[in-house]
Amino acid sequence: MIGQSGIAIRNIKRADSSSVAQLARYGVATVHEAMGRVGLLATYLRPVYPGAKACGTAVTIFAHPGDNWMLHVAAELLQPGDMAVLGVSSSNEDGMFGDLLATSFHSRGAVGLVIDAGCRDTADLRQMGFPVWSKAISAKGTVKATVGSVNTPIICAGALVHPGDVVLADDDGVVVVPKAHASDVAQAAARREAKEALTRERLAAGELGVDIYGMRDTLAKAGLSYFADEAAFEQELRKKQGART
Amino acid sequence: MIGQSGIAIRNIKRADSSSVAQLARYGVATVHEAMGRVGLLATYLRPVYPGAKACGTAVTIFAHPGDNWMLHVAAELLQPGDMAVLGVSSSNEDGMFGDLLATSFHSRGAVGLVIDAGCRDTADLRQMGFPVWSKAISAKGTVKATVGSVNTPIICAGALVHPGDVVLADDDGVVVVPKAHASDVAQAAARREAKEALTRERLAAGELGVDIYGMRDTLAKAGLSYFADEAAFEQELRKKQGART
Amino acid sequence: MIGQSGIAIRNIKRADSSSVAQLARYGVATVHEAMGRVGLLATYLRPVYPGAKACGTAVTIFAHPGDNWMLHVAAELLQPGDMAVLGVSSSNEDGMFGDLLATSFHSRGAVGLVIDAGCRDTADLRQMGFPVWSKAISAKGTVKATVGSVNTPIICAGALVHPGDVVLADDDGVVVVPKAHASDVAQAAARREAKEALTRERLAAGELGVDIYGMRDTLAKAGLSYFADEAAFEQELRKKQGART
Amino acid sequence: MIGQSGIAIRNIKRADSSSVAQLARYGVATVHEAMGRVGLLATYLRPVYPGAKACGTAVTIFAHPGDNWMLHVAAELLQPGDMAVLGVSSSNEDGMFGDLLATSFHSRGAVGLVIDAGCRDTADLRQMGFPVWSKAISAKGTVKATVGSVNTPIICAGALVHPGDVVLADDDGVVVVPKAHASDVAQAAARREAKEALTRERLAAGELGVDIYGMRDTLAKAGLSYFADEAAFEQELRKKQGART
Amino acid sequence: MIGQSGIAIRNIKRADSSSVAQLARYGVATVHEAMGRVGLLATYLRPVYPGAKACGTAVTIFAHPGDNWMLHVAAELLQPGDMAVLGVSSSNEDGMFGDLLATSFHSRGAVGLVIDAGCRDTADLRQMGFPVWSKAISAKGTVKATVGSVNTPIICAGALVHPGDVVLADDDGVVVVPKAHASDVAQAAARREAKEALTRERLAAGELGVDIYGMRDTLAKAGLSYFADEAAFEQELRKKQGART
Amino acid sequence: MIGQSGIAIRNIKRADSSSVAQLARYGVATVHEAMGRVGLLATYLRPVYPGAKACGTAVTIFAHPGDNWMLHVAAELLQPGDMAVLGVSSSNEDGMFGDLLATSFHSRGAVGLVIDAGCRDTADLRQMGFPVWSKAISAKGTVKATVGSVNTPIICAGALVHPGDVVLADDDGVVVVPKAHASDVAQAAARREAKEALTRERLAAGELGVDIYGMRDTLAKAGLSYFADEAAFEQELRKKQGART
Repeated sequence: MIGQSGIAIRNIKRADSSSVAQLARYGVATVHEAMGRVGLLATYLRPVYPGAKACGTAVTIFAHPGDNWMLHVAAELLQPGDMAVLGVSSSNEDGMFGDLLATSFHSRGAVGLVIDAGCRDTADLRQMGFPVWSKAISAKGTVKATVGSVNTPIICAGALVHPGDVVLADDDGVVVVPKAHASDVAQAAARREAKEALTRERLAAGELGVDIYGMRDTLAKAGLSYFADEAAFEQELRKKQGART
Repeated sequence: MIGQSGIAIRNIKRADSSSVAQLARYGVATVHEAMGRVGLLATYLRPVYPGAKACGTAVTIFAHPGDNWMLHVAAELLQPGDMAVLGVSSSNEDGMFGDLLATSFHSRGAVGLVIDAGCRDTADLRQMGFPVWSKAISAKGTVKATVGSVNTPIICAGALVHPGDVVLADDDGVVVVPKAHASDVAQAAARREAKEALTRERLAAGELGVDIYGMRDTLAKAGLSYFADEAAFEQELRKKQGART
Repeated sequence: MIGQSGIAIRNIKRADSSSVAQLARYGVATVHEAMGRVGLLATYLRPVYPGAKACGTAVTIFAHPGDNWMLHVAAELLQPGDMAVLGVSSSNEDGMFGDLLATSFHSRGAVGLVIDAGCRDTADLRQMGFPVWSKAISAKGTVKATVGSVNTPIICAGALVHPGDVVLADDDGVVVVPKAHASDVAQAAARREAKEALTRERLAAGELGVDIYGMRDTLAKAGLSYFADEAAFEQELRKKQGART
Repeated sequence: MIGQSGIAIRNIKRADSSSVAQLARYGVATVHEAMGRVGLLATYLRPVYPGAKACGTAVTIFAHPGDNWMLHVAAELLQPGDMAVLGVSSSNEDGMFGDLLATSFHSRGAVGLVIDAGCRDTADLRQMGFPVWSKAISAKGTVKATVGSVNTPIICAGALVHPGDVVLADDDGVVVVPKAHASDVAQAAARREAKEALTRERLAAGELGVDIYGMRDTLAKAGLSYFADEAAFEQELRKKQGART
Repeated sequence: MIGQSGIAIRNIKRADSSSVAQLARYGVATVHEAMGRVGLLATYLRPVYPGAKACGTAVTIFAHPGDNWMLHVAAELLQPGDMAVLGVSSSNEDGMFGDLLATSFHSRGAVGLVIDAGCRDTADLRQMGFPVWSKAISAKGTVKATVGSVNTPIICAGALVHPGDVVLADDDGVVVVPKAHASDVAQAAARREAKEALTRERLAAGELGVDIYGMRDTLAKAGLSYFADEAAFEQELRKKQGART
Repeated sequence: MIGQSGIAIRNIKRADSSSVAQLARYGVATVHEAMGRVGLLATYLRPVYPGAKACGTAVTIFAHPGDNWMLHVAAELLQPGDMAVLGVSSSNEDGMFGDLLATSFHSRGAVGLVIDAGCRDTADLRQMGFPVWSKAISAKGTVKATVGSVNTPIICAGALVHPGDVVLADDDGVVVVPKAHASDVAQAAARREAKEALTRERLAAGELGVDIYGMRDTLAKAGLSYFADEAAFEQELRKKQGART
């Protein structure tokens, strides 16, 4: 069951590294669209410094409020290219992660952390270049008293994350790509990016989206009426009201 | 009625450009004070990158949750110097606006966007220098299914905005100046700025606000008592308690 | 009683300056840990610009919603090295503090402000280098109509602050150190910092926290089990379920 | 300008009493739909006791945070059948209204209060049967120091309310009907109610909405596919993936 | 993938009815504990009237913000004893469900609704006795424009819910029991309830939890010290400080 | 220091019982006013059932997030007439208190609980008549792993509470009266209640607050102007604008 404590899985199946590399080229918004508009984590997760970007395979952590013990357990199970992702048994904003754990994660080759709780030592993290997406910045220290799990499926910020899934994060937020779909999504993202490049050029040249996307008819069918100005609109309104009485 | 859907007004009366230019010189706090402490939008609207500043005439957009169709309609009605302002029919934080629409708005001459919803592609917006004030940063994609309106009066973040009003935004937030008052407010802002410059000098030189503003008497009348130290205060307290018994 | 209005205490006992100087060397997280994980103000207090850091002796201010009168009273009572700390009689986010008051506070030698309300003119504050930690950024102007107090004990963002206590603030938040403990806490912070430096080196070299801190036994006793992979875990699970039936 | 202070208008044009009486028969949801899905105040306004319902003509009040002076001014301007509606210059939850003011409002013939701030003495209000919709329940006392306005247009909980508009409130929230539209909206509500009664009967008899409203075709066009069971869906999925490769 | 749109599964495997009947006897807190403290939905889901209680098999609904179309689709797929559970593609509080849909769901034999969005006509729901747990009470009407899914796995209020799982809700909140575990959890709940009955009797008779649960030793080991009174504590404190210097 | 863990004080000095009995006669709003508008706990504390009221002497509890161990310790130290009050080391909404602890507290003679965290088994609490004011209703179970303190000063919901202080709670919220002031505040509350009774009669008879409190002059001095109607106001406005030009 999701949220079971006491389990640490040593070896997990990770998304293939070429898909991860491909996905790392795109932004979170593009990948989310390429998946069919799914996979986003809640918007309250924010990078602890601007310009942060990371893409890696998820090592999942399940922790209890005010307790960061499992982050130490996770350190051992991290491999180069991994992204640690922490979900909680109940809402918590304590500073579970700081510069010491970041030093450890970094030395293990991890590329970042997504944490549905708080983070501290943010000035150090910025300096180290170890990116973290967190729910809060909080200096609050935590205990090491109750075990959770590592590498079991978790809910993090409202999204389901399995160990080995691809997790991509940037200034816009965080998206998870199930490992089975990583290759498909990477290709769809590439197609979308190519198409958007063309659209961007046309828009930059002054063409309108309503023309490029052919929206004029559907807008009219959906009930949009254009009026030359406010006076014209009010005249129309009076006409309708007259007709009604 | 505020919040009516299905209307797009092509031509609106805009605040005169010289007032807009004057207002653009001041900060949001100054203009808000110059208006008599009114006109602010809710503080949850934040610039998507620090240092953003913009001032323009409002092209208003009314949209539904999770639907950014009207932003495309608005693009056509934007003129150089306009500031797009989007209100919603109910609370929503989805990423209605991103780099493609920004490219379009920018090519139309718009100076920025104030959106009571989410924004994405924030790294691109920063790079383009297209400033956005939003309720949230969210990569969540939106549909184009339900029409709203463009250039009708809207409520945006708790403030009433008419098409053509002046909208000024900076690091401190967003303020709207009704177009009929734009000239008066610009002059009042200039007077305030001049007066504050003098006060700033005196404060920098070590003079106290309580003296500059002549507050000592009113403070005393309003009931403020000074004590040399905590002991003096406690002595006074005991005296009063003694008198009461 | 906490929250009494109408009192301004001119002279307060401040924490000794050498302890303040020592504490200023450490981060908020370190000092909070050194105190035994206490003393933090609520995490909704954020610096108005990144990289802000300040440490000083508290001049406390008690104010009412939408009223910044007491900040002017406080200006006179500030001494070089002081940190102004403002608590409110009820929740408020108005922009009580801006560039004029900052000019005044700065000229009095104050090192910063912690305010359980809003702040404005944030671009100016950044430029002046006068750091503020606030609950909100808001251009909303305030009145000067109701007196509060200066230099009485206050609750600020959920923490009790006495005049003269040490207040340390950085990117991670704000911590208060009671003046009687300032020296002890400074020493404990130094010890902690020294110890963490060694741990950091070992972690950077690839050693694991579970080994450095000797957690393997306690983790096992607390119920953590390792499995080679998901298949191994599921096999164990079936075994247990079999045993139960 | 919205939010101007210092004005009290004695006589206002109120919506006609027969429209008010008609609107009072319907629920907030029905009237909101009858207006074309507009007019709702923010959902954070909640009745201070369950089962509260009121409908009256708005006497509008503009107040400042922590200051309930204008409620006393409004008492004099209330007429039988009026609903007091209070907006604020900035967010505030203090207990501006309690049993004394309720006694006064009640004796003036007011039918209720909608307040974008806090309310207290809620047990007394329930006993008196004087309904209040508020943002918060708070015992926090307020001052009488700064004037606002009475009977000027206000923004209350994100909606524009003019003096004399019809305000209807029940367990579902609060809706405002502009006085010029009161009669039209009342008729539309009556039509909607009649139509819904028929639909309700059919639904109660087991008919399906998808049939009553004829949704099956539009659902299919919009992309909904039915599958007998999960296995059928997965078979289809594999077929599509096969086709793609 | 979780969150895929356009799918309606007609037939689902439901938890066995005897387990559902057993689980319906217990409270949400008991079942959550019996599962090993997992399975809760976020606490922002509240019953729309006090005393509501329901237990049924989940028919899952995935919907988009401001769009209640899928609730109509779900009506057809509901069977007696089902509990409808709705998750959203992004945060929304609109009134997606009201008395008409409740009439329909009720006539289909559904026992309740859990909705990660808003609900309206709450007075009618209370009168009908159709219980709903929602994120908000909102009269805001919704469109029927974009398809979601019915009977696919969803995330609702931070929990993963599969079609056919048992969903139990009462005044304390909502818990989901995966259908494969329904029988085990029902038995564990029965055991827990029996055990708690005995403990309750002993506590009612004045015995202490610290004795019943044998906590005195573990408390001491965890560092708790008892002092006769404050003076005794301060004496001890001084002793320690003396020892340190 | 506030927030120190590991301390349990057996015997505390309680406010005198006659003051507690007197204070119990008044509402929270009255006592808060009688103290000079201080002493309230944050408004997010709400009774778990309507109509709850309690007044007792504080037994204070300091607990950590997700850990209710100290509530068991507190049970032993409760005496008849006590009100348990729990503060936390960091924000938490877990269900720390339920029917078993309530049974224990009730058998010890406690009159209620104020908890800056979550509460569960609320239906049972209502039935038992054991009132609780909490931050949240949550079925989330907690651990017993980390010690806090009992009968040390705490911050609860933003207010400082000492062991033995009087805590009064009703539908309007929670107020704390320092034990040294209990008698004075009780008398002030009695005077206030008497005075309000007279005012209530006059208001009920139709007299106006602006007359009873003699506000007409101060309103005028503070800048309030009355206008016969909107037309009169606009005429005045034009006159002023004319004068300015």
